[in-house]
Amino acid sequence: MEQKEISRAVIKRLPRYYRYLGELMKEGVERISSNELSERMKVTASQIRQDLNNFGGFGQQGYGYNVSYLYNEISKILGIDKQHNIIIIGAGNLGQAIANYTNFERRGFMIKGMFDINPRLVGMTVRGIEVYPIEKLEQFIKENDVQIAALTIPKSKAKEMAEKVISYGVKGIWNFAHIDLDLPEDVVVENVHLSESLMRLSYKVTHMDHSIKEIPR
Amino acid sequence: MEQKEISRAVIKRLPRYYRYLGELMKEGVERISSNELSERMKVTASQIRQDLNNFGGFGQQGYGYNVSYLYNEISKILGIDKQHNIIIIGAGNLGQAIANYTNFERRGFMIKGMFDINPRLVGMTVRGIEVYPIEKLEQFIKENDVQIAALTIPKSKAKEMAEKVISYGVKGIWNFAHIDLDLPEDVVVENVHLSESLMRLSYKVTHMDHSIKEIPR
Repeated sequence: MEQKEISRAVIKRLPRYYRYLGELMKEGVERISSNELSERMKVTASQIRQDLNNFGGFGQQGYGYNVSYLYNEISKILGIDKQHNIIIIGAGNLGQAIANYTNFERRGFMIKGMFDINPRLVGMTVRGIEVYPIEKLEQFIKENDVQIAALTIPKSKAKEMAEKVISYGVKGIWNFAHIDLDLPEDVVVENVHLSESLMRLSYKVTHMDHSIKEIPR
Repeated sequence: MEQKEISRAVIKRLPRYYRYLGELMKEGVERISSNELSERMKVTASQIRQDLNNFGGFGQQGYGYNVSYLYNEISKILGIDKQHNIIIIGAGNLGQAIANYTNFERRGFMIKGMFDINPRLVGMTVRGIEVYPIEKLEQFIKENDVQIAALTIPKSKAKEMAEKVISYGVKGIWNFAHIDLDLPEDVVVENVHLSESLMRLSYKVTHMDHSIKEIPR
C-alpha cells in the first residue's frame, strides 16, 4: 500500500475513476489511453495522468492504462478490496433507502443491522436487514466488528449518538444529520448534507445565465 | 445581485456559512468577529474574511459581521430567498425520505409532487405530497412552474428521464443516480453520489493511521 501523500482533491476524484474503470471492464475494454479516458470522463488528460501518477507507474507510454489492474489498485487504495461492516442508526425512510442499496454490498460494504428508538420499527426487516433496539447497540457493534455507522437521525441526536458508537468501537461515521460533528481525531467522518447540496443547486439555477463567469477550480 | 466571479470552492462553502449564521441568529447573536466565527466553524479567520469579501463589505473593522444581514445576503446569493418548486422522480424509499424533510421547505424548496412508474405507488401521499404517474409529468411541470427535479431512480433510467424533464422546462437536476448526466449547458446538475461518499469514508477508515500525512487543500 502506498504511503505517500495524496491530496484530498485526488481522493475525492478516485471513486469516479473507479466507477468509469468498472464500466470499461463491463464493456470488455482491457486498456485505455489517458486521452480516451479524458474524453469519457470530461476531465483533461493531463489531470488524469497527474492523478493516477500518485499511485505510481500504472500508465505506460504507447500502451495506456491496464483497466483491470488500475481498477484493482484503486479499489485497494480506497480500501474497498476488504469487507466493511456497517450499521444504520435511524430506520426511517432515509435509513431504509440506504439499506435497500444493493450496490454497497458489491463494494464490500455489508449492512449488518439497523437501529431505532421507535419500538414500532424494531423487528422490521428491510431486504433481510433487521431493525434492532438502541439497547442492543454496544453488544452488536462488538460482536459484528462494525467499523462504520451511518447516522440517519435528527441533528439534535447526532452528536450524542456518534460519541456513543465511537465509544463502542466504530471508526467511521457516515453522517446524514445536518450538523458538523466535532469528534476525536482518530474518528473519521464523511458528511452527506442534503440541504447544502440543494442550496448549491439553487445557486446554480439562480445564476445560470452567469454560469460562464464561474471560475472553475 | 453581485455579478462578480465567485469560485466554485467559495460557493461550495456558502451553505455552511448560512447554516452557522442561522444557528447564531437562533442564539440571539447579533454580530460576530471573523475570529469567533473561525473558532466555531473550524476554518481560519483569514479564509472567512477572504470568502465573505467576495460579497463585498459585510464585515467592519472592530465591529465584525452583522449576523442577520450576512445571513440574508447569503440567502440572496444562494437564491433561497425565493421559492423553488421541486418534483421528485422515483417514489421509493429515497424519494420518500426527501419528501419527508421539512427542512427544505423552510428554505423555500417546495416539493410539489412525486412521480413513479410503479402503479402501486401512484396515489400514495407522503406528508401530503402525492405520487403521480409519469404520464402526468409534462402537464404538471408546466402548470406548477417546476424548476428542479430530484432523480431518485436507477441509473439506467436517469439520463432519459433527465432529458425528458428538461424538455418540459426543468432547469436543474438534483441527481441521486450513480451516473454522470451529460446534459445541455443551460441545465445545471448537482450530484449526490452516495456510493462515492461511502468509498471516501472507506478510504479514510483504511488510511486512518496515516491521515496526518494527508495534504489538506
